[in-house]
Amino acid sequence: MHEPHDAAHETYRAALLDARLLIASGVPGVYGLSGVFEDVVERFDQYVTRVGAQFRPEVMRFPPLVSRAHYERMDHLETFPNLMGSVHTFMGTDQEHLELMRKRAVGEDWSAALRPTAVMMTPAACYPLYPTAVGVLPQEGRTVDLRSFVFRHEPSIDPTRLQIFRMHEYVRLGTPAQALGHRDDWIERGLDMLAAVALDARPVVANDPFFGRGGRVMAVMQREQSLKYELVVPITSSDAPTAVASSNYHLDHFSRTFGITTADGRDAHTACVGFGLERIALALFKAHGFDPGRWPRDVRRVLAL
Amino acid sequence: MHEPHDAAHETYRAALLDARLLIASGVPGVYGLSGVFEDVVERFDQYVTRVGAQFRPEVMRFPPLVSRAHYERMDHLETFPNLMGSVHTFMGTDQEHLELMRKRAVGEDWSAALRPTAVMMTPAACYPLYPTAVGVLPQEGRTVDLRSFVFRHEPSIDPTRLQIFRMHEYVRLGTPAQALGHRDDWIERGLDMLAAVALDARPVVANDPFFGRGGRVMAVMQREQSLKYELVVPITSSDAPTAVASSNYHLDHFSRTFGITTADGRDAHTACVGFGLERIALALFKAHGFDPGRWPRDVRRVLAL
Repeated sequence: MHEPHDAAHETYRAALLDARLLIASGVPGVYGLSGVFEDVVERFDQYVTRVGAQFRPEVMRFPPLVSRAHYERMDHLETFPNLMGSVHTFMGTDQEHLELMRKRAVGEDWSAALRPTAVMMTPAACYPLYPTAVGVLPQEGRTVDLRSFVFRHEPSIDPTRLQIFRMHEYVRLGTPAQALGHRDDWIERGLDMLAAVALDARPVVANDPFFGRGGRVMAVMQREQSLKYELVVPITSSDAPTAVASSNYHLDHFSRTFGITTADGRDAHTACVGFGLERIALALFKAHGFDPGRWPRDVRRVLAL
Repeated sequence: MHEPHDAAHETYRAALLDARLLIASGVPGVYGLSGVFEDVVERFDQYVTRVGAQFRPEVMRFPPLVSRAHYERMDHLETFPNLMGSVHTFMGTDQEHLELMRKRAVGEDWSAALRPTAVMMTPAACYPLYPTAVGVLPQEGRTVDLRSFVFRHEPSIDPTRLQIFRMHEYVRLGTPAQALGHRDDWIERGLDMLAAVALDARPVVANDPFFGRGGRVMAVMQREQSLKYELVVPITSSDAPTAVASSNYHLDHFSRTFGITTADGRDAHTACVGFGLERIALALFKAHGFDPGRWPRDVRRVLAL
């Protein structure tokens, strides 16, 4: 499929590869990062941590996996099946292994012999949290600081559309007012943070890319309820800016699934803000050039570069 | 299968969960980490970076995936098929999706409808490097600093046997002398580093857990050639200490596969040292207690805690 901004994507991608900020892996949307790129990711990540520290969040770090049993209880299989990453392995005998090797040798698909493991790639940093939060929340609710790689199977030549990337999230679990306040405050705070590193961000009501015919209805409903805001920045295009962060109100979606209640016994509401760390780095390289040593002084100060 | 040290593993695992240093995910060998645990991982990781900086390594950071096409050219499918993580997704139509949802609803296995993506979970931090290193090395060879999550499907109640964990590696590509020197120097350097944080480490000749009947022969050969050394530390048992780092000489294994040659036109040799960051943290918590604020002053100084 020819995308409208293919040429701009290809140009920026080629420049990033040429500068060796990105290292090709042979798979679209999967790259190695140079030390310079990784340093920008880490500096912005630390900036997020410093800003979020005022809320004294609990820090949790999950690997980029989520339990298959928990995944099955969420809606991802229904709403984003085409984006999932299901982890499979070989559980057979010596004899079955010989057959696997024979298939590889003659170029046949050997993957049908594999079996699903107990894990999936996680599609968001907050997915592994909810199953651990079962029960009654404290009066003041909870605020959790999460960061992990997340996987979304959407191969693209757009260097900002990665199949695997890091997301730094703050999740709020509490009353509707606590969750909604978190969502709205982080829209403003996120805009301030992006402005502080001289990125031209604005908030837009958005929808997730729900799968199939039914998905179109869900996208409309999500927009009508204004559940999802993205902070968008021009990277490869000014008329189609790229989401670098999003702030989402989940209502009682996750809480009802896993059984998370407020102190007064109602279903909790949850909300999250997520910063896409590689995308923010890509926006910074686009706006300020490929050498962070020559970025504007104020930006360098904010990032402690 | 009942392992000889099950009781000791279960005791340490329960203590870690009770202290909330580990957060259960519902899957054996997959845990969330508390902020305290993560901080120890990051501090040791930074210590590795400081020590390795003397070699002025190139820094590369790959996500925890490797191209399936590259994976197929390596030996992992032959030697460790039971440890692999193959990433699959749904590539079907709306109609096929309805059938998938029907299967989930009645508790049937829906995973057979999935198709393999272009990626695998990487089993080692250095796997994605070799395909990018194709060609002729400079006279002085190359030294590369890598860190990533790695996946190995070996569910266990032993809290030190994680299915996914971080490995900080230094890889040397060059002449046989350059590679072997790297391997041997890092055995000594690794012992010094572990001694500096008051861990009682020693080097042992080791073998990888090759699969099946053929694997037993490969394990004997690897030991006879002394290609792999592990640095082991008592964690849950003093008579069966746990490998927290390893230093390996690959001969021309990866270089012949991908075509990496020295300046004088011969097949390059490669070697790597890898520090298992979660295991080192688990060794530190075992040796010095669960509160890093009360660890010995010298250990805190080395880790900049």
